[in-house]
Amino acid sequence: MARERAAAAFAEAGIVLTSDERNAIEVADFGLSQLDEIGLEIVVYVNTERVCAKELVLFPRQTCPEHRHPSVGDSRGKEETFRCRTGVVYLYVEGEPTANPACRPPASGGEAFTVWHEIELRPGEQHTLVPDTLHWFQAGDEGAVVSEFSTTSTDELDIFTDPRIGRATMIHDE
Amino acid sequence: MARERAAAAFAEAGIVLTSDERNAIEVADFGLSQLDEIGLEIVVYVNTERVCAKELVLFPRQTCPEHRHPSVGDSRGKEETFRCRTGVVYLYVEGEPTANPACRPPASGGEAFTVWHEIELRPGEQHTLVPDTLHWFQAGDEGAVVSEFSTTSTDELDIFTDPRIGRATMIHDE
Repeated sequence: MARERAAAAFAEAGIVLTSDERNAIEVADFGLSQLDEIGLEIVVYVNTERVCAKELVLFPRQTCPEHRHPSVGDSRGKEETFRCRTGVVYLYVEGEPTANPACRPPASGGEAFTVWHEIELRPGEQHTLVPDTLHWFQAGDEGAVVSEFSTTSTDELDIFTDPRIGRATMIHDE
Repeated sequence: MARERAAAAFAEAGIVLTSDERNAIEVADFGLSQLDEIGLEIVVYVNTERVCAKELVLFPRQTCPEHRHPSVGDSRGKEETFRCRTGVVYLYVEGEPTANPACRPPASGGEAFTVWHEIELRPGEQHTLVPDTLHWFQAGDEGAVVSEFSTTSTDELDIFTDPRIGRATMIHDE
């Protein structure tokens, strides 16, 4: 059901997917089984050993939990750019905490949201994160579609603030 | 005028640009002053030392001339993925020539189109090129909007088949 809902959000955003892509939309609940609050829906366009491009759907107020992409040895961590296509997405990163943030953390696990410098992204706006930056993001009340342009995606290396989250159980298969 | 026309094509494709981005749409005529035939319109979203993402407009039958992205020393050439968003784009690469290709080269300079293996891309379809691959592409009769996901874009290193094309004169400023 989440997959169909995400497919509808992509269609509404004018983003054309092949039927194979629609059927393969990844529904990530990070193993927490609270998808409406914590999760995201993903189409991976390309992920080579050099470059990755994805399209993300966030349902209204759905949150991608706080994490970072570490550099490991000589290998630099993932660099990523988020570009808002529809809706509004609030990106939180390290830095001066925003006085009255637009988002609250999910009811369960809220202590695992520790960075509060807010960057509001509306359609056509984007932000680039350098490796190792702690970040999380949440859609506004209408949800959001977000493009992600990055170096290679190696999810298994991501470090989440919430100790309950292990990538191995990330995929919520419906 | 080409810039406004490209902005309209992006809008029709549902791609939201900021006003700064609209005003900075790059109109590339490759120094040939035959923009309707040879050229493309470009918005660069991001181009860091690792990753690049662009959005391209091709007017009806407009052609990006044949070129390749060479590896230089230890630095691997540009790897790029083209994803069609609207319209149709015909991508030509090295390999078995297609018997009845959908495109003809421009009237002037046609001898500089030497690879004829055709890949037809419709909305939602994409193709990834490894470095050093000779390629060119042309939109169908309705034009096309194409997303490009790649490693760093270093246009000054591109090698064009047409000896008249030098990157220094690529930008057609209106």
